[in-house]
Amino acid sequence: MAPKYAPDVRSRLAPLLLFLQTGFIILYYFSTEIESNVDGIIFSNFYPVFQDLNVMVFLGFGFLSSFLVRYGFSASGFSFLIAVMATQWALILNGIESWYYSGKIKLSLRSLGVAEMCTASVLISIGAVQGKTNHVQLILMALLEVFGFVLNEWLLQTLLSARNTHCIMVLHIFGAFFGLVLTWILYRKESEQGFEKEKLDRKAGLFSMLGTVFLWMFWPSFNSVLVDDHFPERKLRSVCSTYLALAVSAVASLAVSALSSPEGKVHPANFQSCIFAGGVAVGVSMSVIRYPWEAMTIGLTAAAVSTTGFRYLKSHMLFAFECHDTCSVLSTHGLPGLLGWLTHLLLQIKQSDDHTTAIRFAVFHICVLLITITVSLTMGIITGVLLKWDIWRPPQDKKCFDDQAFWMFEHLAVRK
Amino acid sequence: MAPKYAPDVRSRLAPLLLFLQTGFIILYYFSTEIESNVDGIIFSNFYPVFQDLNVMVFLGFGFLSSFLVRYGFSASGFSFLIAVMATQWALILNGIESWYYSGKIKLSLRSLGVAEMCTASVLISIGAVQGKTNHVQLILMALLEVFGFVLNEWLLQTLLSARNTHCIMVLHIFGAFFGLVLTWILYRKESEQGFEKEKLDRKAGLFSMLGTVFLWMFWPSFNSVLVDDHFPERKLRSVCSTYLALAVSAVASLAVSALSSPEGKVHPANFQSCIFAGGVAVGVSMSVIRYPWEAMTIGLTAAAVSTTGFRYLKSHMLFAFECHDTCSVLSTHGLPGLLGWLTHLLLQIKQSDDHTTAIRFAVFHICVLLITITVSLTMGIITGVLLKWDIWRPPQDKKCFDDQAFWMFEHLAVRK
Amino acid sequence: MAPKYAPDVRSRLAPLLLFLQTGFIILYYFSTEIESNVDGIIFSNFYPVFQDLNVMVFLGFGFLSSFLVRYGFSASGFSFLIAVMATQWALILNGIESWYYSGKIKLSLRSLGVAEMCTASVLISIGAVQGKTNHVQLILMALLEVFGFVLNEWLLQTLLSARNTHCIMVLHIFGAFFGLVLTWILYRKESEQGFEKEKLDRKAGLFSMLGTVFLWMFWPSFNSVLVDDHFPERKLRSVCSTYLALAVSAVASLAVSALSSPEGKVHPANFQSCIFAGGVAVGVSMSVIRYPWEAMTIGLTAAAVSTTGFRYLKSHMLFAFECHDTCSVLSTHGLPGLLGWLTHLLLQIKQSDDHTTAIRFAVFHICVLLITITVSLTMGIITGVLLKWDIWRPPQDKKCFDDQAFWMFEHLAVRK
Repeated sequence: MAPKYAPDVRSRLAPLLLFLQTGFIILYYFSTEIESNVDGIIFSNFYPVFQDLNVMVFLGFGFLSSFLVRYGFSASGFSFLIAVMATQWALILNGIESWYYSGKIKLSLRSLGVAEMCTASVLISIGAVQGKTNHVQLILMALLEVFGFVLNEWLLQTLLSARNTHCIMVLHIFGAFFGLVLTWILYRKESEQGFEKEKLDRKAGLFSMLGTVFLWMFWPSFNSVLVDDHFPERKLRSVCSTYLALAVSAVASLAVSALSSPEGKVHPANFQSCIFAGGVAVGVSMSVIRYPWEAMTIGLTAAAVSTTGFRYLKSHMLFAFECHDTCSVLSTHGLPGLLGWLTHLLLQIKQSDDHTTAIRFAVFHICVLLITITVSLTMGIITGVLLKWDIWRPPQDKKCFDDQAFWMFEHLAVRK
Repeated sequence: MAPKYAPDVRSRLAPLLLFLQTGFIILYYFSTEIESNVDGIIFSNFYPVFQDLNVMVFLGFGFLSSFLVRYGFSASGFSFLIAVMATQWALILNGIESWYYSGKIKLSLRSLGVAEMCTASVLISIGAVQGKTNHVQLILMALLEVFGFVLNEWLLQTLLSARNTHCIMVLHIFGAFFGLVLTWILYRKESEQGFEKEKLDRKAGLFSMLGTVFLWMFWPSFNSVLVDDHFPERKLRSVCSTYLALAVSAVASLAVSALSSPEGKVHPANFQSCIFAGGVAVGVSMSVIRYPWEAMTIGLTAAAVSTTGFRYLKSHMLFAFECHDTCSVLSTHGLPGLLGWLTHLLLQIKQSDDHTTAIRFAVFHICVLLITITVSLTMGIITGVLLKWDIWRPPQDKKCFDDQAFWMFEHLAVRK
Repeated sequence: MAPKYAPDVRSRLAPLLLFLQTGFIILYYFSTEIESNVDGIIFSNFYPVFQDLNVMVFLGFGFLSSFLVRYGFSASGFSFLIAVMATQWALILNGIESWYYSGKIKLSLRSLGVAEMCTASVLISIGAVQGKTNHVQLILMALLEVFGFVLNEWLLQTLLSARNTHCIMVLHIFGAFFGLVLTWILYRKESEQGFEKEKLDRKAGLFSMLGTVFLWMFWPSFNSVLVDDHFPERKLRSVCSTYLALAVSAVASLAVSALSSPEGKVHPANFQSCIFAGGVAVGVSMSVIRYPWEAMTIGLTAAAVSTTGFRYLKSHMLFAFECHDTCSVLSTHGLPGLLGWLTHLLLQIKQSDDHTTAIRFAVFHICVLLITITVSLTMGIITGVLLKWDIWRPPQDKKCFDDQAFWMFEHLAVRK
């Protein structure tokens, strides 16, 4: 008898989605209105960058991870669905303070942009559990992670008076650690021999390349979107730094990927994932980068660390820690994020005039990291424990990494 | 003997295209000049939105319908060709009044944008006859439909003094009904058993996903492009409303698609087509939407209607009315468009201060719909009767939905 | 025994890349800083166009040439790598004068844009040698060609006081001739029977279509990016002219492609390559185009010339001149570029008031062409002689046009 796919989607997913969506509409009814006091110039300047961000969040991340041979629809479709849900949820959570004080959350392009940045942290975490979870689990994960991310932001702002941009830019670190601890808790024995369908497809690989290039190109928008419009020189600095760091990253990740392969060939997934390392690192340390060569050096180091991590750390994590990190988010977001954090610390200390400021900043900066990692791990553990529950009917081992568990292809059965 | 593909393309298409294109150049020689009085700020603000529109019209619609297993090139290539022809033609027809009065049609970014909106109605109609027509038929259809659309616009403006934006936003309704009546007239017996090659391909399906996501992301640009630059708050309102409606639509169409399938799986084409329903509905009713929750409710309803329609109405239309609607434009554009129209009516009445205004608006609004549908059906019938003529050599049943009838793949014969 | 792929990538590529990249960082350390005097409005207006340019340079050109059945990764990946290296190099070379005089090269969005235009000429040349060269050869070629291009620019500005825009717009002519002479020198006997893997793939063809459409859509940005922001009417003129020329080109290249095929079918690669001819020609002659019909006529002629060239010239070049032009850059960039140059000459003479001005311009314009072609051919010959050296280990004939020579696909060996 042919193996049957668990009909979990119908019995769980549709009601959950409709319930959540109706709930969101009711929440929006009470809480939101559209900003009516709009500056035309700021709107027009922001709009193209907002669209770049959309391309990254709704298209880039999804297609980046569509390299698996039978998981293209799920990778792009699920990421899209999660992004849509998480953004709606983040809009509310981000505005909760203004809801409390002024009675309404005002929606503007900027608040949509900030919500999409929160969503990006969820999309990063998905990379770690990709293929081994179903829709329902991913949605719950998204809701909890966005909550955690906003909580972290609130803690940083309340306890440390950190600036908003600062809080958001830890998204790479937050997302990576959240995803890691989650996939560690959801570990399956099967992972050790490798899943039957967890392999790269050449043709689908080009979709992944497409997603990669879009993410790469628009990363400067991602890093500069929150920089205040009144300081165009800062905007230019963040665009140029990110651009150069990304350029160097691309070169370095190709070189290191070729170096670390016994045959001297480049592994597409390795290249595609590590190409952003510079963008991630610069994103975290942006405010202290002054010169092009600084950005380029960060890009080089980040790509080298990221590519080496992808090559050696992934299997090490799997066998030593039972942590199966599908898209290797530790190497692609975690390590470059930490490197960016370290660079920020070092450069800031170097630029400080006296010891007191330097030490004060170091303490502040270390606290930011500790709080972020603590919140991220805690929320990851809570989410993991919740998702391990059998009620969500996770896909059986044989159905992991398989589009057919969730998508209907009419003629497939007939054509073999 | 191997089946031969009718060599209609060469004997008909190339001369027709060259003749039309030369004709256009001569027309442009007499009628057009480039606007010389340009406001730099408006130009720069408009340009990115104009490019978003280009992505939708020239890439999005074409790739959206590239999900058929052997029709990817035709779907994307024909849509592109038709868009290019229709836009040139629409530029002239839209400017005919100013040609008459001031002797010249002034080309600007805005007039290009408006022309592309007219083209969008043609691209919608193509969805209904996709795969069962050849290049030549599609071009004739495009010319006639653009003419019909501009005629409709002119009637609405002359008879009812409707605003320009109002006239253009009925494009979804116009396109859907035009396409439906056309495919009804061009009905073939073969449709009942289904065409041999009319089936979804998994790999090509990702191209369709790509087109979908691009359309989805840039839909806010589509809806806000004609809003006057002097009212940034209206622009923001239309962007935010569209964004939220689209978000809810995406969630709802996935949920309803899973609910309506016996196995609880999601049908990719269903999901991909119905994801825009909210954008379509909000596009038609935009000017009266005030609050986020209104847009979201419209998005939810539109997606539910559209997805259910896609699932049940399509086959019903085929067997009961002999109307073979390839991409299901009735459900994806027609119904959400009508829903948007209805919402506009209800919200406007609700917002009216007194009965007289309400009734006056209701009469006006119903007339808009009646005129639009009448013109659309009439032009559809005329076009259908014309295209049924054997002189255009429509593809034989066996060659429907087949790229090989029009495109040359060098090594295909050799490789089996 | 299975054929082995030369492990040239590891032993040559990685050290070369790391060496060059470290060199660049050191160069940047001494020479560059980020512009600190930024006008917010100009920045915001330029940014979306800059991103369009990125899409063309980093995505469009690469995916355009991804139509080969087993060369998709290399086509898109190598183009990307080369673009990244060439842009860094061009930034330095373009700024060498300001480095000399003011001690620093100031990086701005505009200088990044200009650098990407130089890179475009490299990407054009790659089209000619595509598939028959390895990474290392391509990188050397890129460095030498950018040097040649900047040298040409400097010669034109010094000897003829040509305007900057003028110098850059010859990039199509420069790139095409450079590529041609290079592929002529690197000629292999195998080319005559055709390489085993040099054939179009249907599925990958859609990626090529995608790249094509992106290039086509954003070509107006490419042509208008360097037009001064203070003259919005010139910007509009270049956008509208390019748009119309591209539209006509698309129609004409489809028609001529169908006409020139014995079966009346359209050859996808032919259509995809010649669709830009109008954009290329208008790019070169932009400053003298006044009326829409002029742009459209240029588009029609350019597409006709380009499509016919693609059909007949390519094989003629191969057999008569032993010049194997993979992507047919002579027809797609060379001929339309020359046509644009000729149009510029004729229109300028027609618009001149007296004979003296006309003759003076003609002499100037002919000199521009002669210098450009001379520099291009000379640099091409130098590069070719250098790349012919066996030390670079060019791919063996059997490994030409094969991704597997450079990319590692884990499960490919196992799965047959």
